[in-house]
Amino acid sequence: MKRTDYCGVLCESDLGRTVTVAGWISAKRDMGGVIFLDLRDREGILQVVCDARNLTQTDFHTAEGLKNETVAIMSGMIRERDEETYNPKLATGTIELAADSLEVLSEAGTLPFQLDDSNNVREELRLRYRFLDLRRPEMLRNLRFRHRVARVVEDYLDREGFLSVETPMLTKSTPEGARDYLVPSRVHPGEFYALPQSPQIFKQLLMVGGIDKYYQFARCFRDEDLRADRQPEFTQVDMELSFVDQEDILLHLERLFKHIMKETMGLDFPAPFPRITWQEAMDRYGSDKPDLRFGLPIVDVSDIAAKCGFSVFSQAARSGGCVRALNVKGKADFTRGEIEALTDKALGYGAKGMAWIAVRQDGELYSVLTKYFSKDDMDALLERVEAAPGDFILFCADGLPTVRRTLGGLRLDLAGMLSLRRKGDFCFLIVTDFPQFEYSEEEGRYVATHHPFTMPYPEDVQYLCSEPGRVRAQAYDVVLNGVELGSGSMRIHRPDIQEKMFEALGFSEAETKERFGFLVDAFRYGTPPHGGFAFGLDRLVMLLLGARSLREVVAFPKLGDASCPLTGAPGMVDPSQLEALGLHIQMPASRRTRRHRLICEE
Amino acid sequence: MKRTDYCGVLCESDLGRTVTVAGWISAKRDMGGVIFLDLRDREGILQVVCDARNLTQTDFHTAEGLKNETVAIMSGMIRERDEETYNPKLATGTIELAADSLEVLSEAGTLPFQLDDSNNVREELRLRYRFLDLRRPEMLRNLRFRHRVARVVEDYLDREGFLSVETPMLTKSTPEGARDYLVPSRVHPGEFYALPQSPQIFKQLLMVGGIDKYYQFARCFRDEDLRADRQPEFTQVDMELSFVDQEDILLHLERLFKHIMKETMGLDFPAPFPRITWQEAMDRYGSDKPDLRFGLPIVDVSDIAAKCGFSVFSQAARSGGCVRALNVKGKADFTRGEIEALTDKALGYGAKGMAWIAVRQDGELYSVLTKYFSKDDMDALLERVEAAPGDFILFCADGLPTVRRTLGGLRLDLAGMLSLRRKGDFCFLIVTDFPQFEYSEEEGRYVATHHPFTMPYPEDVQYLCSEPGRVRAQAYDVVLNGVELGSGSMRIHRPDIQEKMFEALGFSEAETKERFGFLVDAFRYGTPPHGGFAFGLDRLVMLLLGARSLREVVAFPKLGDASCPLTGAPGMVDPSQLEALGLHIQMPASRRTRRHRLICEE
Repeated sequence: MKRTDYCGVLCESDLGRTVTVAGWISAKRDMGGVIFLDLRDREGILQVVCDARNLTQTDFHTAEGLKNETVAIMSGMIRERDEETYNPKLATGTIELAADSLEVLSEAGTLPFQLDDSNNVREELRLRYRFLDLRRPEMLRNLRFRHRVARVVEDYLDREGFLSVETPMLTKSTPEGARDYLVPSRVHPGEFYALPQSPQIFKQLLMVGGIDKYYQFARCFRDEDLRADRQPEFTQVDMELSFVDQEDILLHLERLFKHIMKETMGLDFPAPFPRITWQEAMDRYGSDKPDLRFGLPIVDVSDIAAKCGFSVFSQAARSGGCVRALNVKGKADFTRGEIEALTDKALGYGAKGMAWIAVRQDGELYSVLTKYFSKDDMDALLERVEAAPGDFILFCADGLPTVRRTLGGLRLDLAGMLSLRRKGDFCFLIVTDFPQFEYSEEEGRYVATHHPFTMPYPEDVQYLCSEPGRVRAQAYDVVLNGVELGSGSMRIHRPDIQEKMFEALGFSEAETKERFGFLVDAFRYGTPPHGGFAFGLDRLVMLLLGARSLREVVAFPKLGDASCPLTGAPGMVDPSQLEALGLHIQMPASRRTRRHRLICEE
Repeated sequence: MKRTDYCGVLCESDLGRTVTVAGWISAKRDMGGVIFLDLRDREGILQVVCDARNLTQTDFHTAEGLKNETVAIMSGMIRERDEETYNPKLATGTIELAADSLEVLSEAGTLPFQLDDSNNVREELRLRYRFLDLRRPEMLRNLRFRHRVARVVEDYLDREGFLSVETPMLTKSTPEGARDYLVPSRVHPGEFYALPQSPQIFKQLLMVGGIDKYYQFARCFRDEDLRADRQPEFTQVDMELSFVDQEDILLHLERLFKHIMKETMGLDFPAPFPRITWQEAMDRYGSDKPDLRFGLPIVDVSDIAAKCGFSVFSQAARSGGCVRALNVKGKADFTRGEIEALTDKALGYGAKGMAWIAVRQDGELYSVLTKYFSKDDMDALLERVEAAPGDFILFCADGLPTVRRTLGGLRLDLAGMLSLRRKGDFCFLIVTDFPQFEYSEEEGRYVATHHPFTMPYPEDVQYLCSEPGRVRAQAYDVVLNGVELGSGSMRIHRPDIQEKMFEALGFSEAETKERFGFLVDAFRYGTPPHGGFAFGLDRLVMLLLGARSLREVVAFPKLGDASCPLTGAPGMVDPSQLEALGLHIQMPASRRTRRHRLICEE
């Protein structure tokens, strides 16, 4: 017997056809002389009727013995079901196969978990038996959707003249800021390759080489502690363009994401996408990746608060900090408990407290603040935050970073409390003008916000070494629903600026030469202005599907400790392999056997 | 100024348009008040005329100072060239840009080699400055062609219902027979991931998971000594299908390769492709990947030779060896020197000598063999090899492996000597029925010819452990012009056969469980019959382009010692990185600094 059709695509136009289908037994109902089977394949489920009168005794006996998830192949005619047994939940719900022969291809033993109950199954067990987990319609749908998104992206980039070029995985460390995975060399013992954190340097070299428009579905590796939306390896849609400016790239990105949304979700998006500078995003939403599915903007009231008698406010406003507010519309009736919960969260974000005003329906203010404000100032304050009867206004007064973090955090918490995020809403946002550097307390120096190849705005180049904090980068993120989908920048294409950049980052000349000498060198042979972008394919797919974790859209993901419960990777290797690499395991015995099962932050 | 058009695509329909183009200065001819530039971008070259009368003094001065490979942008009107200056070698040879402004975007220093002379440049230098090497039209063409082939393959597989699924790179050792690249784990010190030699196990698990038809452009890694058609990392087009038999897969492959040839080369190929069993390929061509662009089949004459008086022949034929011949049509006039050269080659392949017969134009035989054969036997011999006046027949008598190797080798040598391979000829061949096992003298045991997951023919399963040498595998190769493009097989989907297979390979039960337990386990939960195929994308592209090495079709290849002259990878790492991994470099000081520059076998 040989399969002629997929189960799930048979339909009424196949009535009367003799077909052979194959798949997994998904359910069995034994009615005595008649056995009803649900046979499942990639395309769906078909009901198969095994009637003792139409089958040989052997075949009927086989049907009686079928267990769930056994693989079988069966032939027969497609016929209409009795109308009262129509199943509207199935695409094939009006038809069935009247089997006249069947054969078991592979038996199934007792399953470690029931497929239709796997939401209640420990994730580690699901991943250990991923080959079973993948049989769930939801997982199959996720993988198919991922395939579709990838094809849509690739078709689009191909049509737009981008050339896909593959870059090496066995390469050299690049400064993405995360830990590299290393690969020991056998031919050069004592030396190591690094797995790429991104193809950044290679794609820039491709621009130097005249490729003009490049893309790649690039596997990238970061040896970091994991969380729900990170995996040690992930796939990045990586792009680079020559002879463009930032605006050209942003237009490309808008067209690309509009196209993806149209082709995979059937959603029309207006371009341009909303744009916001990093500064404004931090001020209005307390985040560089604001979720714009809801409003709740942060409002600065420092100037008004500076004049009030409430010392927490006035001191913050006068000593270089600020006072900012969120107007929670219509929530003057927050209970004492709710307000306390919000205050606790504010304290958790590092604020020293949370002041608030409830504007009663009759306009009366309920707040400890009223006595500290003149009537005029209070009116100005309420006007500034656009307060109306029924609103609840909360305040944070502190240094700028704390205020941003607190109100940015409360804004998201409130969205959760008040269910402000509607499922199926997709809000794109482009954030521009990131700072070139961030000060790293840990390293005691400025580090690159994006990466050291990012071009500053021309007017800010002069401050690279003298006032790094004020340099704005030609860098941009695309944010979807409060998640950073990807980021990009115009790149430095001049060796003098690149060298100054490394200097600003505190790299010695020798270090620059050793690590990036070949790149700076390349810039001396005619380099076009260029820039690019990269976004996480898995992350995009996860957001579009509304999945709760990257592990729902990756076929064989790792757990939080970067281990694979299915294969058992990583594992021990043969001492001779290490010897060939000139390596020796050296560590305290206590570390040697421990398996750290880090809890995933979810 | 902002680019409006690519240089290379402008044509006569653009006459009169004002455009802005950007690219690299490819040539400059200074004629006094007029400077002719060749400006090159990804799409080709455009002549630009800088006339002192049409440019500002500054711009003209800039034009005078332009050096080759400087990047510049320039605007002006497209006009027709004077007819006597038409350049038929350029697509844009009848037009030119009359520049009215120009700007240098990036200066080029003195180049390490001239781009148009790079065939004479040491390959290591070309790879060190790959970003310059890529600017050569040939390299750009190769990368574009590779992109096109990849897109054609992917579109085809997508249309045929294959789902692309990405499988992990940080995984566990699989038994492809080559050395693994290892990746030390930081979270689990002392443990290692292996980079995949192929996604073999994962694609089989996807079949167990019901994906039904899978493909992936999979990066694969093998830590082997390199040669011209190998790289430590390479891209494999990987496929797997469920509920199919070998014939289904071969039909898929024929359609796929026909499609590729049509879409990328414009060549129509008849299907079916010629097919041959491994046995027949070895007997007729002395190779499991015969080049069928020419004939020169090997003919067995053992039965006739057994009766002759020439003891080398008769003994070989009677003691389990054989006597086989190649008829080199029309080459009775081989010179003594040519015959000696062939004999030397035969000795090099391990033969003890090379007997031959030259059939003169008048039918007279010139050979030491004549006196050892009866007239009837000689007639039978000549008839068997289809000898005609003017032919040269050469013989090898020895054990079967030596005869196959010698005549197979001589067949290829003769094709070289006689220029039998025509450029632009493409001969596909499908080789089937590979032996399941080969005996490894080195390991003193049978090893899998393909891999341990290959399904034997059902009638041969019984011999797995008792007579491994006679088991034929359901394995097949696609060969193009004597090069193995890729290979595949039906897979074992029954745990009992898989276990027997591991037993036949001499794996202990514990070893099987440790290394492949999860796969054998998976087969216990309902596994469809499945099989697949994988072919080297770079290798296919290389063959279609007639390129001499994989390094001509890979953007950033490694040298023969797996090093990258561009980035310097592999390299030393910081001791703290090793400490985090629990590793220590331990080897004789003499090995520590040596850089093995293995000579590439070309």
